[in-house]
Amino acid sequence: RRTGDPEVVYGAGKTPEQLVGILRTLHAAHPERAVLATRLSDEAMKAVQSEVPGAVLDLEARAATIGPLPEPAGTVAVVSAGTSDAPVAAEAALTARVYGAGVARVNDVGVAGLHRILAARADLDAADCLIVVAGMEGALPSVVGGLTGTPLVAVPTSVGYGASFGGIAALLGMLNSCAPGVTVVNIDNGFGAGVFAARVARNAR
Amino acid sequence: RRTGDPEVVYGAGKTPEQLVGILRTLHAAHPERAVLATRLSDEAMKAVQSEVPGAVLDLEARAATIGPLPEPAGTVAVVSAGTSDAPVAAEAALTARVYGAGVARVNDVGVAGLHRILAARADLDAADCLIVVAGMEGALPSVVGGLTGTPLVAVPTSVGYGASFGGIAALLGMLNSCAPGVTVVNIDNGFGAGVFAARVARNAR
Amino acid sequence: RRTGDPEVVYGAGKTPEQLVGILRTLHAAHPERAVLATRLSDEAMKAVQSEVPGAVLDLEARAATIGPLPEPAGTVAVVSAGTSDAPVAAEAALTARVYGAGVARVNDVGVAGLHRILAARADLDAADCLIVVAGMEGALPSVVGGLTGTPLVAVPTSVGYGASFGGIAALLGMLNSCAPGVTVVNIDNGFGAGVFAARVARNAR
Amino acid sequence: RRTGDPEVVYGAGKTPEQLVGILRTLHAAHPERAVLATRLSDEAMKAVQSEVPGAVLDLEARAATIGPLPEPAGTVAVVSAGTSDAPVAAEAALTARVYGAGVARVNDVGVAGLHRILAARADLDAADCLIVVAGMEGALPSVVGGLTGTPLVAVPTSVGYGASFGGIAALLGMLNSCAPGVTVVNIDNGFGAGVFAARVARNAR
Amino acid sequence: RRTGDPEVVYGAGKTPEQLVGILRTLHAAHPERAVLATRLSDEAMKAVQSEVPGAVLDLEARAATIGPLPEPAGTVAVVSAGTSDAPVAAEAALTARVYGAGVARVNDVGVAGLHRILAARADLDAADCLIVVAGMEGALPSVVGGLTGTPLVAVPTSVGYGASFGGIAALLGMLNSCAPGVTVVNIDNGFGAGVFAARVARNAR
Amino acid sequence: RRTGDPEVVYGAGKTPEQLVGILRTLHAAHPERAVLATRLSDEAMKAVQSEVPGAVLDLEARAATIGPLPEPAGTVAVVSAGTSDAPVAAEAALTARVYGAGVARVNDVGVAGLHRILAARADLDAADCLIVVAGMEGALPSVVGGLTGTPLVAVPTSVGYGASFGGIAALLGMLNSCAPGVTVVNIDNGFGAGVFAARVARNAR
Amino acid sequence: RRTGDPEVVYGAGKTPEQLVGILRTLHAAHPERAVLATRLSDEAMKAVQSEVPGAVLDLEARAATIGPLPEPAGTVAVVSAGTSDAPVAAEAALTARVYGAGVARVNDVGVAGLHRILAARADLDAADCLIVVAGMEGALPSVVGGLTGTPLVAVPTSVGYGASFGGIAALLGMLNSCAPGVTVVNIDNGFGAGVFAARVARNAR
Amino acid sequence: RRTGDPEVVYGAGKTPEQLVGILRTLHAAHPERAVLATRLSDEAMKAVQSEVPGAVLDLEARAATIGPLPEPAGTVAVVSAGTSDAPVAAEAALTARVYGAGVARVNDVGVAGLHRILAARADLDAADCLIVVAGMEGALPSVVGGLTGTPLVAVPTSVGYGASFGGIAALLGMLNSCAPGVTVVNIDNGFGAGVFAARVARNAR
Ligand SMILES: Nc1ncnc2c1ncn2[C@@H]1O[C@H](COP(=O)(O)O)[C@@H](O)[C@H]1O
Ligand SMILES: Nc1ncnc2c1ncn2[C@@H]1O[C@H](COP(=O)(O)O)[C@@H](O)[C@H]1O
Ligand SMILES: Nc1ncnc2c1ncn2[C@@H]1O[C@H](COP(=O)(O)O)[C@@H](O)[C@H]1O
Ligand SMILES: Nc1ncnc2c1ncn2[C@@H]1O[C@H](COP(=O)(O)O)[C@@H](O)[C@H]1O
Ligand SMILES: [Mg+2]
Ligand SMILES: [Mg+2]
Ligand SMILES: [Mg+2]
Ligand SMILES: [Mg+2]
Ligand SMILES: [Mg+2]
Ligand SMILES: [Mg+2]
Ligand SMILES: [Mg+2]
Ligand SMILES: [Mg+2]
Repeated sequence: RRTGDPEVVYGAGKTPEQLVGILRTLHAAHPERAVLATRLSDEAMKAVQSEVPGAVLDLEARAATIGPLPEPAGTVAVVSAGTSDAPVAAEAALTARVYGAGVARVNDVGVAGLHRILAARADLDAADCLIVVAGMEGALPSVVGGLTGTPLVAVPTSVGYGASFGGIAALLGMLNSCAPGVTVVNIDNGFGAGVFAARVARNAR
Repeated sequence: RRTGDPEVVYGAGKTPEQLVGILRTLHAAHPERAVLATRLSDEAMKAVQSEVPGAVLDLEARAATIGPLPEPAGTVAVVSAGTSDAPVAAEAALTARVYGAGVARVNDVGVAGLHRILAARADLDAADCLIVVAGMEGALPSVVGGLTGTPLVAVPTSVGYGASFGGIAALLGMLNSCAPGVTVVNIDNGFGAGVFAARVARNAR
Repeated sequence: RRTGDPEVVYGAGKTPEQLVGILRTLHAAHPERAVLATRLSDEAMKAVQSEVPGAVLDLEARAATIGPLPEPAGTVAVVSAGTSDAPVAAEAALTARVYGAGVARVNDVGVAGLHRILAARADLDAADCLIVVAGMEGALPSVVGGLTGTPLVAVPTSVGYGASFGGIAALLGMLNSCAPGVTVVNIDNGFGAGVFAARVARNAR
Repeated sequence: RRTGDPEVVYGAGKTPEQLVGILRTLHAAHPERAVLATRLSDEAMKAVQSEVPGAVLDLEARAATIGPLPEPAGTVAVVSAGTSDAPVAAEAALTARVYGAGVARVNDVGVAGLHRILAARADLDAADCLIVVAGMEGALPSVVGGLTGTPLVAVPTSVGYGASFGGIAALLGMLNSCAPGVTVVNIDNGFGAGVFAARVARNAR
Repeated sequence: RRTGDPEVVYGAGKTPEQLVGILRTLHAAHPERAVLATRLSDEAMKAVQSEVPGAVLDLEARAATIGPLPEPAGTVAVVSAGTSDAPVAAEAALTARVYGAGVARVNDVGVAGLHRILAARADLDAADCLIVVAGMEGALPSVVGGLTGTPLVAVPTSVGYGASFGGIAALLGMLNSCAPGVTVVNIDNGFGAGVFAARVARNAR
Repeated sequence: RRTGDPEVVYGAGKTPEQLVGILRTLHAAHPERAVLATRLSDEAMKAVQSEVPGAVLDLEARAATIGPLPEPAGTVAVVSAGTSDAPVAAEAALTARVYGAGVARVNDVGVAGLHRILAARADLDAADCLIVVAGMEGALPSVVGGLTGTPLVAVPTSVGYGASFGGIAALLGMLNSCAPGVTVVNIDNGFGAGVFAARVARNAR
Repeated sequence: RRTGDPEVVYGAGKTPEQLVGILRTLHAAHPERAVLATRLSDEAMKAVQSEVPGAVLDLEARAATIGPLPEPAGTVAVVSAGTSDAPVAAEAALTARVYGAGVARVNDVGVAGLHRILAARADLDAADCLIVVAGMEGALPSVVGGLTGTPLVAVPTSVGYGASFGGIAALLGMLNSCAPGVTVVNIDNGFGAGVFAARVARNAR
Repeated sequence: RRTGDPEVVYGAGKTPEQLVGILRTLHAAHPERAVLATRLSDEAMKAVQSEVPGAVLDLEARAATIGPLPEPAGTVAVVSAGTSDAPVAAEAALTARVYGAGVARVNDVGVAGLHRILAARADLDAADCLIVVAGMEGALPSVVGGLTGTPLVAVPTSVGYGASFGGIAALLGMLNSCAPGVTVVNIDNGFGAGVFAARVARNAR
């Protein structure tokens, strides 16, 4: 953990009781700093809401924070196409914010509707780091990467069926992007993309 | 073989002598009809050129034809991004032509350079069937398919390295295209795409 | 969306309430045009039936439509072997119809019973585009493609167990078909095949 | 080794000198019995021909035998589609013969040309065991298996390109055959199929 | 269906009501012949027991038969290691019996306990066809195949965890068996092995 | 291409003559800017050296540049373990430099020798972006990422054998890194990592 | 079973009643020796606790023992990173103990926190055999193996998501470890690692 | 490197000149200790023989040593089936010897010939650690592991074709061995198995 970085709890596989306990303990130990909990189940969300005073839920990201967020420095833009990819995009956005970056969302831009991507060009160029979230064929980072020179982290999602193989098609598409300078994180790993992008943005001029 | 369809020889794994013999025999038996030979090695190309009078070589497609081509009916547009995918695009174009369609080429359009694709829109709309050839992440069919309602056959190529896995990344990308109505053929199978597209175009109004 | 194309809603991952709301809104906005909703759960089917007046359910396809269907132009024939593949075949047939083609069904033709396929030859030749649906080894498109020159779109299904790997065996079989001119869509993607085939049929002479 | 079974040498990875030596030694030790050598390179074929008196080459199978073949008992029919699969079919046929069965070849029957398969029905029914060899999508065993109740061993070959993945597509197709009672051996393993089928045929009424 | 072969119903994906109806109809239409239903759920087993008079349940095989079994001809021996593989072995045994062969079971023989396999040698040699069922590493067919010349069909099962990948490890092990003449069916496909082995045994001297 | 970015030529699949021609043309057209050529064969290296005056070869990276390099801004540190990974590390370092960043190399640090990594900590912290190159199990980025908060791009290499599967093991290891904020590029893609890292470093405070 | 080895019951797929019965029977037959039951469900744990007097539960390992444990000989150290891998580590530790070794646990050592691993060096060197348990990228064995010459068995776990593919990433990482002398067992197979390590430790000086 | 361990050079990818240089340098620096070079090409073998005085070649292992071997302590038995697996078995044996163990070879034991394995039982029990090398289906470790309680390291080899997938079938077979206590190394990694087994044997009573 770097100075200023939040405490983080990975909620998958933990019971609501465990999560409530961990959040309370961490917040009590570090009241001056943010605590972030991700991958919360419906039950965990409810338990945190009612039993952890001061916790703020992010329903789209299925996450919660408690404690003061850091002053934002630099800008991360999170780009995504549709509602299915929204939870991963929201996890990335919240993580980047909690790790100290300012965050802009660019929603509803898909490769099969180029005019909306073209309309977002100024936002893409203005950011210090882009996070581009896409499932299925994962082509969005190639198109966005062709439009801008901003550093771009691609997040494949498990959205799709059949030969999408739970996100493998999108992952491979992004690793083979013909746009130079695209980097990739694990399938559905909005958290990792958010940490990385915030580190880039916080250090940007 | 349908009436009017050419005779076809698949050159891979055949010696130059075998190919010369087959081409002569087929042309003698069907002088009124085209014969198409694909996947020719350098040696086979040379042997055909010097020993099969009347044969016409297509160096880009690594193929040869002999005998009269059918009158073209309808239009197939073959779209591709770069020089690496050119042999597959050329095989598709020649095959479509030999199977009776008129053919237009739309070259140098890549997903990382949207203005060229946008400039080609009229050509895309004017065709009766599109063949879109792409390697690496195979994103081009999604972008083209978002711009036009023309039936679209995608051909993944084995161009790439590492996690492109000899064309698997492009194949999966195309199978998962978010643009509705994209169909796919085997990796590097310009021939199959050409046969299919010609059948669509020949029957179009 | 092309002129005349329907509005489409992909039901997977949406709640019955969301689906009812979307269908009502789209139909109110475009009363002169068809709306198609696919991949409906049992609950979604019931909710649409009771709460969206004018909606027509297709139980086999697990889909619903509302609003006037376009005048059919051209013919798509949907060929399938057995009851397990029926939902995918029905999705393909309904989609092709809603996208403006006339549709014929050729059922109960399997590769292990050739006489029924042979008996269907006239139907195959009469269509402007074929959709051939098959699971397990996915051999039906090769056999059908050997019998006719009609453009053929193959749909692999996830029917099977063990080394069928959720449709991979059928998908690979179709991509490697020895019948020239077979194109393929994603596993279980009756929708995509229907869109493509309707576009071909609508434009046929 | 069962009584009456031949001695077998697997030629892959052995030098011509090694193979000549092994064949001579085995034949000298068992002059009353056949010795079979498979997977011979061009060099090995030449060396065996000139340096092992009495050896009989099978050019198509890339194999050699020496010593008296057993009296044939029962019949194995080896079915294949095209010239590319011929070496594997020939290895299967020679092996079955050397292991004591009579062998019939049924060539040039492919799934895209049903009339030739239908014409071969009597041969299929007359055999005690079938070996069906096919590459690409590997659909031939399903079609043959639907026509006859004779026990059927399928041999996938590595013939194909792209998504045939060196025979995986054919292997999966055969494992998922909708015709009941199809068994499968390794890719290109004509030898194993021949051993098995001969054992069935030798023991048949 | 060959003369004398049973009617067969594949129970997976069918409701208890559907199965009861199909069994009654088939038995009424062919009272002189066996009907076999496989892959029955607990509910389907109960429904068949109480609502299809004359049906005989095989609890281990999760299957049912109704109608007279054919006179047994020849012998199939079904070899398996442990209790986890028992349902697949039982499906193979019942199928072989219903398809007209006599059946012997050789249980509790595993590769890590050679003495029991060695003790079963006479049974292995006496059979006309062997079915060897194994999960995990699938090594049993190699060991059995090294002990006997009887034709051997191997059935991989999905028993195992981790890198057994649902039966892939066993399947690959069997396809690569160093014992010559081993053939293989799909993962968990006791039915297919039973059909094949019965055909071999019925025709044996 | 962004302002200040170099022209780039991908040498794989191009003949020495083609490469010499392209380099000359690009340099003549943009004499004020760098041109970078990667993936050069031995022959191409020789041809460039003797026929493109002013070209500078990087033997380790198998690359060449011509024209003035941009003023370096910010620092990229390229970390790698051994001599086998050196060509990929060198490609990354040269690319980052040509795209405008200052570059530091940290060599001979492997996960099985922690003291050298620990000794390099100051270099890791001083950089604006890290590129960590590793083959085999690809564990180095996890260890480095645990030591520093600098943004980290991991490059898997195809170094290894057997179950390294040409770099897949390293790629998967990096995608699953337990150190948060690791991003990944394609196998052996030093170029892509260099472009990305330079963009981050150039924009850093 | 070697002399002194326990009786073992694999609980997966067995009902609580079956497990209670087997444990009672085995303990009654061998009261002087330990019986070990692994992979117990919650229900099985409860049933064993209340219905098998003398049984000792290991909640972390999801296992139970009954009967006297052997005198410990030699030392196995079980190393793991976090709470998610704890059940597998506990299964390994209990198994090693029941098979006759003394066991030390080294917890909370992860590759992203090197100081804790370095602090554990004496424990690593003192053991006769190490078991290192890790999920995700599976890098821990490489780091531990670089610090000590003690024989090391690595256990990949299925902990992770996306491209961890249920433990494949960790398995491949361990098989490709750059630290020489690392051996590997199946994913989540703490039992197998425990058996092996105990055999090594029992026989150590 | 532990005290007493040799210096090791991995020959793959190094030129004969490089290898000669490294061997001379290492031997000069550590004349009292063994140096081991593995994976030598034919050219490298010749160069070492003629240019490194004192080097001892192991033709079967494709390896060389120079300098005094350590006093052997404990016994490693290396078990393998046939000539194809011999190079890997020899690499394992030489490595174990150079790392300080005594070594016994048990050759020509295959799963399809149980009597030879049974005859070797005393050797298996007498060793302190077993290395079992096998290709194709990789069943030998299961059979050996069922016969003895000696710690057993399995080495899959890339011997085989088709669905052996370069050693994957053998690797999976070994990871899923039903004999408890089998550990596994990378495909063809005789070196790693030798290091591990020597460490076990050296420390054995
Ligand atoms: N480039 C190609 N890719 C795939 N199939 C082809 C190709 N060229 C020809 N074919 C097919 O190969 C058949 C001829 O094969 P052959 O008789 O071996 O020359 C033709 O009927 C086509 O179906
Ligand atoms: N074409 C083949 N494919 C697979 N296995 C074979 C083949 N030919 C021979 N064999 C096997 O290889 C064994 C002989 O191997 P070897 O002693 O190395 O010559 C025979 O007993 C056969 O089981
Ligand atoms: N957790 C485990 N993982 C893998 N194998 C196990 C495990 N626990 C027990 N076994 C094996 O399962 C056998 C007992 O199986 P069973 O007779 O089905 O209870 C033992 O001899 C062990 O070899
Ligand atoms: N045959 C082999 N297989 C795997 N690793 C090896 C082999 N031989 C040597 N090594 C490893 O390679 C290292 C030396 O690599 P290098 O410095 O490139 O020669 C040694 O420390 C061993 O860990
Ligand atoms: Mg998307
Ligand atoms: Mg491309
Ligand atoms: Mg089917
Ligand atoms: Mg074929
Ligand atoms: Mg088993
Ligand atoms: Mg490395
Ligand atoms: Mg871990
Ligand atoms: Mg072997």
